[in-house]
Amino acid sequence: MSIATTMIIRLEIRKSVASFGDVASRITALGGDIVAIDVIRASKDVTTRDITVNVADAGNEEIVGALSSMPGIRVINVSDRTFLAHIGGKIEVTPKMPIKNREDLSQVYTPGVARVSMAIHEDPNKAYTLTMKRNTVAVVTDGTAVLGLGDIGPEAAMPVMEGKAMLFKQLAGIDAFPLCLNTKDPDEIVNIVKAISPGFGGINLEDISSPRCFDIERRLTEELDIPVFHDDQHGTSVVVLAGLLNALKVVDKTVETSRIVVVGIGAAGVSICNLLLAAGARHIYAVDRDGILARGAEYANPEWKRLSEVTNPEGLKGGLADAVRGADIFIGVSQGGILTVDHLKSMNSDNIVFAMANPTPEIEPELAEPFARVLATGRSDYPNQINNVLCFPGIFRGALDCRARTVNLEMKLAAAKAIASVVHLDELNEQYIIPSIFNEKVVEQVRLAVIQAAIATDIARRIPKDITEEGK
Amino acid sequence: MSIATTMIIRLEIRKSVASFGDVASRITALGGDIVAIDVIRASKDVTTRDITVNVADAGNEEIVGALSSMPGIRVINVSDRTFLAHIGGKIEVTPKMPIKNREDLSQVYTPGVARVSMAIHEDPNKAYTLTMKRNTVAVVTDGTAVLGLGDIGPEAAMPVMEGKAMLFKQLAGIDAFPLCLNTKDPDEIVNIVKAISPGFGGINLEDISSPRCFDIERRLTEELDIPVFHDDQHGTSVVVLAGLLNALKVVDKTVETSRIVVVGIGAAGVSICNLLLAAGARHIYAVDRDGILARGAEYANPEWKRLSEVTNPEGLKGGLADAVRGADIFIGVSQGGILTVDHLKSMNSDNIVFAMANPTPEIEPELAEPFARVLATGRSDYPNQINNVLCFPGIFRGALDCRARTVNLEMKLAAAKAIASVVHLDELNEQYIIPSIFNEKVVEQVRLAVIQAAIATDIARRIPKDITEEGK
Repeated sequence: MSIATTMIIRLEIRKSVASFGDVASRITALGGDIVAIDVIRASKDVTTRDITVNVADAGNEEIVGALSSMPGIRVINVSDRTFLAHIGGKIEVTPKMPIKNREDLSQVYTPGVARVSMAIHEDPNKAYTLTMKRNTVAVVTDGTAVLGLGDIGPEAAMPVMEGKAMLFKQLAGIDAFPLCLNTKDPDEIVNIVKAISPGFGGINLEDISSPRCFDIERRLTEELDIPVFHDDQHGTSVVVLAGLLNALKVVDKTVETSRIVVVGIGAAGVSICNLLLAAGARHIYAVDRDGILARGAEYANPEWKRLSEVTNPEGLKGGLADAVRGADIFIGVSQGGILTVDHLKSMNSDNIVFAMANPTPEIEPELAEPFARVLATGRSDYPNQINNVLCFPGIFRGALDCRARTVNLEMKLAAAKAIASVVHLDELNEQYIIPSIFNEKVVEQVRLAVIQAAIATDIARRIPKDITEEGK
Repeated sequence: MSIATTMIIRLEIRKSVASFGDVASRITALGGDIVAIDVIRASKDVTTRDITVNVADAGNEEIVGALSSMPGIRVINVSDRTFLAHIGGKIEVTPKMPIKNREDLSQVYTPGVARVSMAIHEDPNKAYTLTMKRNTVAVVTDGTAVLGLGDIGPEAAMPVMEGKAMLFKQLAGIDAFPLCLNTKDPDEIVNIVKAISPGFGGINLEDISSPRCFDIERRLTEELDIPVFHDDQHGTSVVVLAGLLNALKVVDKTVETSRIVVVGIGAAGVSICNLLLAAGARHIYAVDRDGILARGAEYANPEWKRLSEVTNPEGLKGGLADAVRGADIFIGVSQGGILTVDHLKSMNSDNIVFAMANPTPEIEPELAEPFARVLATGRSDYPNQINNVLCFPGIFRGALDCRARTVNLEMKLAAAKAIASVVHLDELNEQYIIPSIFNEKVVEQVRLAVIQAAIATDIARRIPKDITEEGK
């Protein structure tokens, strides 16, 4: 996938040898689009300018190389907007009020703070009112499965986690802080998260590789009394189910009677199967490298073993081609290019195809479009983007506001239905099954639905003021 | 110590039975000072008002009790300003820029962020430019020695750590985040801090009990390449030395020739002895429960053993009274009330007394004043407050800006001298040996001195632009 970027080239032009016109025409000839020029310094002989250029990613180096070799031109520096946006990090920690004088200081710090600390010491529940706990989420990763990039380590994971923290705050007002751990040992990760938990109201696990992620999340959920949510699993499954519920309305089918193929049984795939089962699906075929998971076979991954016993009721054997033949729904969270047009042609009529491999989908959308009634991807440059950003801000907002002890299946189902409901029936069509991440209704609807589900299942420890008992 | 606070009393007045005048005169009679009245609701029979009252701490309950027992009055709620300032916590995590549209999103999050992550993966040092690491400090505690309150646990420690984070940001622009650990095991604390370190440029250890704190800090300093600084030790010792350097100028003595008694050999006391030795002191007498530390005696605490070998050169034996007799300087970081007027009278002329036990000093300042040439305490309501806030913002600002690998003795000495230097020679007197924490020069002077010391001792990995090589 080529990403269009903006780069800023700072260069010196020796006037006697070259002109800005020469520079501009060279850039344009190589496919660059000049969008801004800033004169930094100008002397009799030399001018220094920042030239902002929009360019397809691959064209970056070509343009810089061409300019560098021009007589009279010296390229001083090249930066692109994406890198510039990251300099010094993307989030900060700020006081909610200034400390203007000694009286302020003695309230928020010593000696006044001692009374607040003692009040919490006497009743630890007061941490929810008297500290940042109630609005704060740790975004925890070990950097082993970052985006589609794999095990790139904790430092390299930071920009992703900072970006996530930005979204938490902007979309849901939640204070999220990244903790990128320099260990891959599941026992250590569990111990660390337990140890740091007192100051947090929730834990967002992120980009931890499968199958380690299942055990880590399960143990933390058991041992902590705050929500633990592995977004790669559940954020994805919630948004997939949301899109699927609407897609099924478009094609006039039901989740119960549809044959559903889920390909790629990692973090997301496992959670998708679980949530689909909870939503009533009865004909799920989970496919990975070993083919269709089937009862009686031996699997090293305990999640595969478990899924083999609750999916594939008729014991279908074979690979991807066998699974998709006659299927109503294809859900791919696997790898680019594994799905062919022939596969699509073998599906049932009015088929639904979610090809969400990252960054390259299971099948190129242009190829798939003629052979899929409803098509969704993980990408923003096609209709129907299945994006976790639709889920995690609202689900945590809801869980924090009602002080949920955990995020259970009912809350995830409620979140999926809430996301789906943002697209009204009269707006719904093949190209619009899922709302935009910028749709402001999403967080509020998800929050409400999650709180109501938490109250109904006795997971909530507090009923927010805006939720009436009747709202149950 | 009685702390004046402001409380806000919400009450209902049944007009047929009582009047606001009755309420006001009762409050005034009990020593309360009414500073504001807000009418919340008013009906024919009943008015609800918020009454803001300044009151000495002890008078709180008395006033509320008296009002509650008045006929026609119902106290609905009592809150005080300090508690109100803590509701929902005191810090937040905010994006540095808004995500306005899809282009912004693709720069700070997927897919654009992947290029930034890969750049760090290829060169982990880039974490310093492309993430928040370079400006971010973890404030880590296990809640075992919070203020003077002892082992009150991680939840109760949060308000103190949040207050500290506020000061880091307001005074030095540093993003500090509290991590209050639910474990007291030194091995676990070391492992946790190591594991969470990739996203941080420095570690501020806080309120960890002695002697565990020494081992934890030493191991972390050895194993991490970012500064690790236990503020209770070094923040205190740096500010004590700063005050002492100026006090010595006032009384015209030197640190080398003075007899110095340090009482309370915990976290702060150990670090004070170490820093005094580094500053040239040759006659230190370290006193704790077992009396004056002396060569040849056996101590369970390895720090006491070590100090017994480098202090008390003539092998003086005995207790506090023996140590202070003829001493020039008394430094107390022990407990309230242990020092008597007779002790002071037995000291050398032109004596210096730092009585910093918290919240009650080793001797009441009013008692001590006639018998001490220079008197300092940890309290803000007397002259010469020895306050860590003078040190930690500037020392971390300097360490972060030059990417110091650690904070060594030279940097601490430089910080102490810088703090002392903010009080000019012509301003210096018995009542003014240390600058106010609100003096804006402090952070900048400390920063500069710390960077220069780090460069001189080859601890800096970067020379900030404003520091010239000549500045060494």
